[in-house]
Amino acid sequence: MKTYNVAILGATGAVGREMMKILEERDFPVGELKLLASARSVGKLLPFKGREIAVEEAKHDSFAGMDFVLGASSNAVAKDMAPYIVEAGAVFIDNSSAFRMDPQVPLVVPEINAEDVKNHHGIIANPNCTTIITTTAVNALNSLSPITAMIASTYQAASGAGANGPVELMAEVEAGLKGEIYEPKVFVKQLAYNVIPDIGSASDHDYTTEELKLLNEGRKIMHLPEMKVTCTCVRVPVVRSHSVSVTVQTKDKITVEQAREVISKAPGCRLVDNLAAHEYPIPLETSDQDLVYVGRIREDMVLDNALAIWCCGDQIRKGAATNAVQIAECLIG
Amino acid sequence: MKTYNVAILGATGAVGREMMKILEERDFPVGELKLLASARSVGKLLPFKGREIAVEEAKHDSFAGMDFVLGASSNAVAKDMAPYIVEAGAVFIDNSSAFRMDPQVPLVVPEINAEDVKNHHGIIANPNCTTIITTTAVNALNSLSPITAMIASTYQAASGAGANGPVELMAEVEAGLKGEIYEPKVFVKQLAYNVIPDIGSASDHDYTTEELKLLNEGRKIMHLPEMKVTCTCVRVPVVRSHSVSVTVQTKDKITVEQAREVISKAPGCRLVDNLAAHEYPIPLETSDQDLVYVGRIREDMVLDNALAIWCCGDQIRKGAATNAVQIAECLIG
Repeated sequence: MKTYNVAILGATGAVGREMMKILEERDFPVGELKLLASARSVGKLLPFKGREIAVEEAKHDSFAGMDFVLGASSNAVAKDMAPYIVEAGAVFIDNSSAFRMDPQVPLVVPEINAEDVKNHHGIIANPNCTTIITTTAVNALNSLSPITAMIASTYQAASGAGANGPVELMAEVEAGLKGEIYEPKVFVKQLAYNVIPDIGSASDHDYTTEELKLLNEGRKIMHLPEMKVTCTCVRVPVVRSHSVSVTVQTKDKITVEQAREVISKAPGCRLVDNLAAHEYPIPLETSDQDLVYVGRIREDMVLDNALAIWCCGDQIRKGAATNAVQIAECLIG
Repeated sequence: MKTYNVAILGATGAVGREMMKILEERDFPVGELKLLASARSVGKLLPFKGREIAVEEAKHDSFAGMDFVLGASSNAVAKDMAPYIVEAGAVFIDNSSAFRMDPQVPLVVPEINAEDVKNHHGIIANPNCTTIITTTAVNALNSLSPITAMIASTYQAASGAGANGPVELMAEVEAGLKGEIYEPKVFVKQLAYNVIPDIGSASDHDYTTEELKLLNEGRKIMHLPEMKVTCTCVRVPVVRSHSVSVTVQTKDKITVEQAREVISKAPGCRLVDNLAAHEYPIPLETSDQDLVYVGRIREDMVLDNALAIWCCGDQIRKGAATNAVQIAECLIG
């Protein structure tokens, strides 16, 4: 059986560690696995398929012989390393936002636009976590009638900020029980018992960078260059799984029943939609899995041809690590 | 100075206790204060203006000599007591949802429709907490151009479910730290580290009762019978203060600058809107006060003539107790 040499760039972070887990779980045909991180993590041992692999320092010459480099680093590291990865002949599947809007770089959610991987020139970008979850949830509607607009408000988990996000949330909770104050470092405000409408940084038109991703990346992934999107991104004191409340408008009317039918069969989705029985997606029941859960589907009362929808998904798995490994699977499939 | 005899129906709950605090804080000219609750709270002593008042059992004949009855009870108790309150000649300012949509009953947010109190026939209804906060936040826009539609997603605090809501949230947090599971009783699912898109009960068109309140009550308060509203109500693990992400469409265009200008001067509102400086409303900074905080104002990217807005307010105070006392002030003013 053919195997592929894989490097993980940023292996010690929340997404990097999850990538190792996913490669193992999905039995990806890994030959050599190289774990790359900054100098301070060198020698750290991380488990993979019953053995332990030592972290190496990521350098420009780290990529010889690799088939795939799964990127889980900062934008700066991704930009610095990308030319060397491509030169070494590996395909760089990058989870940073550095290359997502580059017209030369496919931006792929395999359930939606797997065929776009073919157009790569050495780099394929993994979309933003909220964008992956929301587009996976609503893509089946797009197959019935083109999506023209989305208005979304998000409920994003602490782990979306990396492995230190949940650590800080729990430190705040424990400090609070002792009557102490924990000074936040990862988030701009205390997250425990709070919600913070400020993810990313201030960008155009008083939106945050995070809020503009669903617009820009959503258009590119779904091949809907005219789609309009308003997004409000809010951090909530949840450990894992992002949730999104989204109104989705389509060119032609899709009934609630039609929406439930297509979403129940959509790849990557699970329909959980029975309000009277208290069945709908919630973060605690959608974590540590790859499916995007979709529910609370009902007619929007403001817009014509629109549905109000609620979805949840594990942003470290489907929203990042799983999606990246799925892209690699598309390339070898 | 003229004084008024006041009874609080449901005095031992979260809203009832806050009503006592607000009457004292605002120096409402209270003559006799009568605390009414169910039989099991009889004799309980609650503090008011440096003394303690014993709780009495709420009965049909409890209201003789009262000028105002502030209702903080269930719908069932409110419906049962209302005829006796009116017969006793008191004005019933009721926080339950029992009478809100009754055409004979004014539904009042004093900053918006204070003049409606004049039309009462013995009962005035206090609106739903989320509705009070959202309408107070956006009402200034309505003075520039009529609001035609709102699409809202809420982030509602545990105390919106009453005094036991935060108790359950904290019990879940403490159980979690010990590795134990706390079986939820107040909420339908665990609230700690979770969000729950299910407040109220299942109602028409797959919306919850809570979600339809912003539509029905919002129309009545703002005198906008044609206003369209889509609302998704979500419980979040916050102790106090509800937050709302809302797109507000108006008949004519209102610029972001115009919106900031009128909201900064609107009664009951405080504008906190500087994203780059991380200044925006958050629950932790808006609790235990009466103002509704408004920020993150920007042009909606989907709808014409629409703004995306974020607001937070203390739902026990402005969203319930303070608003009820303000209604009483309108009547004596």
